[in-house]
Amino acid sequence: MGIVIPMDGKPSDAPSIEPLLRLTADGMGRVNQLILSRVGSDVALIPEIARHLIDSGGKRLRPMLTLATAGLFGYDGEGDVKLAASVEFMHTATLLHDDVVDGSELRRGRLAARMLWGNEASVLVGDFLLGQAFRMMVEVGSLQSLDVLSTAAAVIAEGEVMQLSAAKNTETTEDEYLAVIRAKTAALFAAACEVGPIIAGRGKVEQAACRSYGANLGIAFQLVDDALDYGGTSAKLGKKVGDDFREGKITLPVVLSFRRGTEAERDFWKRTLQGGEATDEALEEAVAIMRRHRAIEDTIERARHYGAMARDALALFPEGPMKSALLEVVEFCIQRTH
Amino acid sequence: MGIVIPMDGKPSDAPSIEPLLRLTADGMGRVNQLILSRVGSDVALIPEIARHLIDSGGKRLRPMLTLATAGLFGYDGEGDVKLAASVEFMHTATLLHDDVVDGSELRRGRLAARMLWGNEASVLVGDFLLGQAFRMMVEVGSLQSLDVLSTAAAVIAEGEVMQLSAAKNTETTEDEYLAVIRAKTAALFAAACEVGPIIAGRGKVEQAACRSYGANLGIAFQLVDDALDYGGTSAKLGKKVGDDFREGKITLPVVLSFRRGTEAERDFWKRTLQGGEATDEALEEAVAIMRRHRAIEDTIERARHYGAMARDALALFPEGPMKSALLEVVEFCIQRTH
Repeated sequence: MGIVIPMDGKPSDAPSIEPLLRLTADGMGRVNQLILSRVGSDVALIPEIARHLIDSGGKRLRPMLTLATAGLFGYDGEGDVKLAASVEFMHTATLLHDDVVDGSELRRGRLAARMLWGNEASVLVGDFLLGQAFRMMVEVGSLQSLDVLSTAAAVIAEGEVMQLSAAKNTETTEDEYLAVIRAKTAALFAAACEVGPIIAGRGKVEQAACRSYGANLGIAFQLVDDALDYGGTSAKLGKKVGDDFREGKITLPVVLSFRRGTEAERDFWKRTLQGGEATDEALEEAVAIMRRHRAIEDTIERARHYGAMARDALALFPEGPMKSALLEVVEFCIQRTH
Repeated sequence: MGIVIPMDGKPSDAPSIEPLLRLTADGMGRVNQLILSRVGSDVALIPEIARHLIDSGGKRLRPMLTLATAGLFGYDGEGDVKLAASVEFMHTATLLHDDVVDGSELRRGRLAARMLWGNEASVLVGDFLLGQAFRMMVEVGSLQSLDVLSTAAAVIAEGEVMQLSAAKNTETTEDEYLAVIRAKTAALFAAACEVGPIIAGRGKVEQAACRSYGANLGIAFQLVDDALDYGGTSAKLGKKVGDDFREGKITLPVVLSFRRGTEAERDFWKRTLQGGEATDEALEEAVAIMRRHRAIEDTIERARHYGAMARDALALFPEGPMKSALLEVVEFCIQRTH
């Protein structure tokens, strides 16, 4: 796998996303060009809003996974680039709609589109991007890919509704929370990875393996994100910590802390997350409670389980640089700190 | 939790099912009487076949869980006994049908009912028990319990069909295998635990917690069973080892070994499990391959994850002997060896 566990803290030894970036660099160049060309519209507001998000520096992990899983089987056509761009458009549309639903003010450290152009425009530009995503998929002409990605779109929306019903409920069970992130996050990771072997003309076995890799990587990715939002396992709180808390989001560290906590601690979670008293002092208290119950460590421990499932899903395939890069991404997702 | 990790191998230190047995002994006495009275029929074959299975010495863990989850909330009526008996009848019906579908010759070390009375009688007596189960549920009069248990019955059947389609396919993914055992095993564990708080008049939070406990315990239980069928982590093979292998069953140790294996090893799994060459010498080779890829250890490692989820589901409730007993069952399921 080529992964060296860092012994002396040298960052070059740590698992990295760099091999995946390198192996998909050519394709991602074409994906980025395609994205820019497809957000064009006579309605000036559309490219303006879309570019605001597109330029905001996300890692674009999802489209990279589509290129990588197609590349894993030696695909050398152009269909993967269009499918990858579709995946990124679907993701961007979700972010736009999410921020409206959650009433978020910031996205990746910048003002959310809805703060600059309003909720209505954010919703409609999201719809536009979703429409463009489907047009690109149709151009590729793979009905099976269309099936996989349109199913994912429906599941993601279902996940949003699920979260809306479960929103701010501190009594959410771990199973219920998992069902939400399976739909909201893992479904698109799974679809992004499944269309790779599909476009490369591979059969059910390869599709199921890549889908399983994507779904479990997506869950691990989200759980680690949840843990990082409370500072991960590091002792001090970084800058970008506490967004989930301030928005009253119920994530796994909260679910575990609530269930493992005392009555007084449960009152604290209800007061802050359900009652809207999520101040900065309350955040410190929240992290202290989580530490007391090992909720952050165990969230990462749970992520490790899904990471192991993701790795085993790919075990089927012969060794090679693309497989190594995909395996290293799993380790990177689990071991990353900010 | 009162669990002591055994340091000197004294069995009395190991996690045990004994506290649960003790706390549910009265109720289980009534469940067993009820079972005997409800297998009565003018058609002599029915009690004969039913008793063959009922007397064969299963642990009756599932009905015990119904009594325990009702007892967790101080329930002192009689409804839990009837629901517990229904759960055991549903389980017994499943075993009868399973043996027919799998063509099994043995069940719990004795001849399977189908070997003594034939397939047709086994199927029909299974149906009779299912009918009796529903009659007892109706007598209890809890529509919500009826909903939970009848849904479980449908899901279990669905799981059987799923397994039929995936049967003997060595390329089954871990996700696909999990979907099968969620339906075939975990659904009844979940339902058995969910009707406890329902009959005790508790709300959604308690129901969801107990359901989650049962479902995750069921998965952990099945995965450990899978590992034990290949000798667990012990070096030597016990007597009851290899049933799954001889029947060509695809379980998690096989899924992991197949995916992690070499081409030659994959040929071995196809030849033995799909091709019917599962001899005793082949079993030794199978276990050797599993050891090489840590497939048995990692199956138990996966079980540990679901066990942790089961424990956290109950963390919500105040400490007490019943909660301790339920937590200890999780440890017992994971640490048991024969």
